[in-house]
Amino acid sequence: MDGLIHTIGASAGTSSYDILVGNSFLHDAFGRREVTSAERIAFIISARIEGLYGEYVRTALGDIRGKSFFFTMDDREENKSYIYAERFLEKFIAEKINRKGVVIGIGGGVVGDFAGFCAGAYMRGIPVIHVPTTLLAMVDSSIGGKVAVNLTVGKNIVGLFHQPALVVSDLHFLESLSEQEFKNGIVESLKHGLIGDDATLELLEENDLRSIRGVEAISALVSRSVRFKTSIVERDEREAGLRSILNFGHTLGHAIESSKGYRGVSHGQAVAAGMQIKIEASRRMGLLTDYEANRVNALLKRYGLVPGGLDLDVEMVMRHMEFDKKNFGGEVNFVLLKGIGKPFINQRIPVDLLKRVMAEIC
Amino acid sequence: MDGLIHTIGASAGTSSYDILVGNSFLHDAFGRREVTSAERIAFIISARIEGLYGEYVRTALGDIRGKSFFFTMDDREENKSYIYAERFLEKFIAEKINRKGVVIGIGGGVVGDFAGFCAGAYMRGIPVIHVPTTLLAMVDSSIGGKVAVNLTVGKNIVGLFHQPALVVSDLHFLESLSEQEFKNGIVESLKHGLIGDDATLELLEENDLRSIRGVEAISALVSRSVRFKTSIVERDEREAGLRSILNFGHTLGHAIESSKGYRGVSHGQAVAAGMQIKIEASRRMGLLTDYEANRVNALLKRYGLVPGGLDLDVEMVMRHMEFDKKNFGGEVNFVLLKGIGKPFINQRIPVDLLKRVMAEIC
Repeated sequence: MDGLIHTIGASAGTSSYDILVGNSFLHDAFGRREVTSAERIAFIISARIEGLYGEYVRTALGDIRGKSFFFTMDDREENKSYIYAERFLEKFIAEKINRKGVVIGIGGGVVGDFAGFCAGAYMRGIPVIHVPTTLLAMVDSSIGGKVAVNLTVGKNIVGLFHQPALVVSDLHFLESLSEQEFKNGIVESLKHGLIGDDATLELLEENDLRSIRGVEAISALVSRSVRFKTSIVERDEREAGLRSILNFGHTLGHAIESSKGYRGVSHGQAVAAGMQIKIEASRRMGLLTDYEANRVNALLKRYGLVPGGLDLDVEMVMRHMEFDKKNFGGEVNFVLLKGIGKPFINQRIPVDLLKRVMAEIC
Repeated sequence: MDGLIHTIGASAGTSSYDILVGNSFLHDAFGRREVTSAERIAFIISARIEGLYGEYVRTALGDIRGKSFFFTMDDREENKSYIYAERFLEKFIAEKINRKGVVIGIGGGVVGDFAGFCAGAYMRGIPVIHVPTTLLAMVDSSIGGKVAVNLTVGKNIVGLFHQPALVVSDLHFLESLSEQEFKNGIVESLKHGLIGDDATLELLEENDLRSIRGVEAISALVSRSVRFKTSIVERDEREAGLRSILNFGHTLGHAIESSKGYRGVSHGQAVAAGMQIKIEASRRMGLLTDYEANRVNALLKRYGLVPGGLDLDVEMVMRHMEFDKKNFGGEVNFVLLKGIGKPFINQRIPVDLLKRVMAEIC
């Protein structure tokens, strides 16, 4: 099952763009007008992907080879920095990328954020095209236009809303993904399922960690997740309200990662833990029935996402939550569920309850 | 004649903002909802203005004093840099400026660009309020949402479109302006006059360099220029076409500044020279009558804007023009006039003619 499988249209303000989902179809995707019409093309490619798929990518270039410039990025999170971005912006000038140029990021969420920031800030914004190579980037971070880089004092402090001109999700890249990386993506799809994406929730329940990796299942998962996320973002591009339901599990997840200095816990593990804590707190607050909570917990278990062994310092997590950029000023507000698929925002959880649940689960 | 004199509404995409023009009315302006509704206020203030008007500004704070944080900027052009911005973004974090914060820039064009960039990139964009303190910033750079910082390899390479939430043009700040700084602003108003702002052109013809500094004349000049520029920007926020008429004289002006390493020539002198070269070239190409060219030259003379003595290296200017960020790719396109008030864009000038006129005039 090679080639283009799904095309999903997304609108962003007055413009719109396509998200292509397919298998081994990079060459076709590079024939799209959004790519070919550029005068010069700056590729920012993950060093890991360059190593594994360099030949695949270069073969896919075809007619655009002569105007393509490759910049390799060692895509560790610490390189997704404001300072590291300066080097790439200078390279763009050196290669005479102009306002009719385009940036194409090939890699996971780090590359997408980084390439999007560079494109959005270069000459007051040139187009960016995302070629996500991880499941997490395909189902979540490549969609919605949030891009950012880190300062030493905090993650994602400097950033923009810069909607992509095109997203190319080529499932061929997923073949080399480790199980943990794959799970990081499943967590975000599951999140979509819990806040209203019924089709994804059912797909996850019909499959398991092995079967979901088949081309048919994974293309369905990616395209459903993308459709759901675009439908949310379209209604609230700049996160004035509705879009914040996408933060479900993330305020806690970020605080968990941050409290551990981003060591010994993946983003997916942290967010899965955040979601499980929220589910349990919602259950004890009488918002979710036992049946609903058990349904979610069964899914977390099925995909190997039950936390445990995280060895959290609960007080430390609480402090990091207060420092979270959305929460300067004291109050910690959460997205909670009042039923599966029914998120509601700006909810407080009694601090005692939150701490107790956290200590029990993690 | 103290207090608010004019309020000009500007729309930008789906939002809108006000530009206030008045005299010694900073305290009233700080009572506006756009200011008072912020949880924390980050002031970026020019060191020169801090020295001359520090007490005036602090007295104007009133009720917002308790949530105001001052960051002084030595506003030399070389400090309007990507690297220098990092320090301010880190300071914002240190002072817990959050998404409900606002940045207020008090200074000339350098401070406005810098404060606008910091606000636009901080946490994916928080509001910026401009308090321009030079005539150039009041009539031109504070309006339209173009903000940028420099890389060592080029000026204004990194930037955004970030429309202000409010612009406060307090004429009191102009009292300390040097004659050269004042002329830098006159040049931009004159540019507006030449590309369609008849009211401003007449005002300039009715006055001279002394009389235009009176409160009544200068408030008329600022408000007319602001009205004209907002009317252009509203129709083409992202410079897809029409807005580029505002570059009249600037492609040449930037190349002149750049060819001299930004030494020994002010921005205003360079742009005035660029305009005069264009006028003369337009005349020789039969686009402007002698009468029209003489009318413009008389105005340039009246305001002491006739170049001469610039000692230009014509070949060097030509090379810098080719390197201009709008022109990677070879062709140098200009805005020309086919009559006073009638700009047309993307025009070529025969290279020989351009060089000859440049050598004769400068």
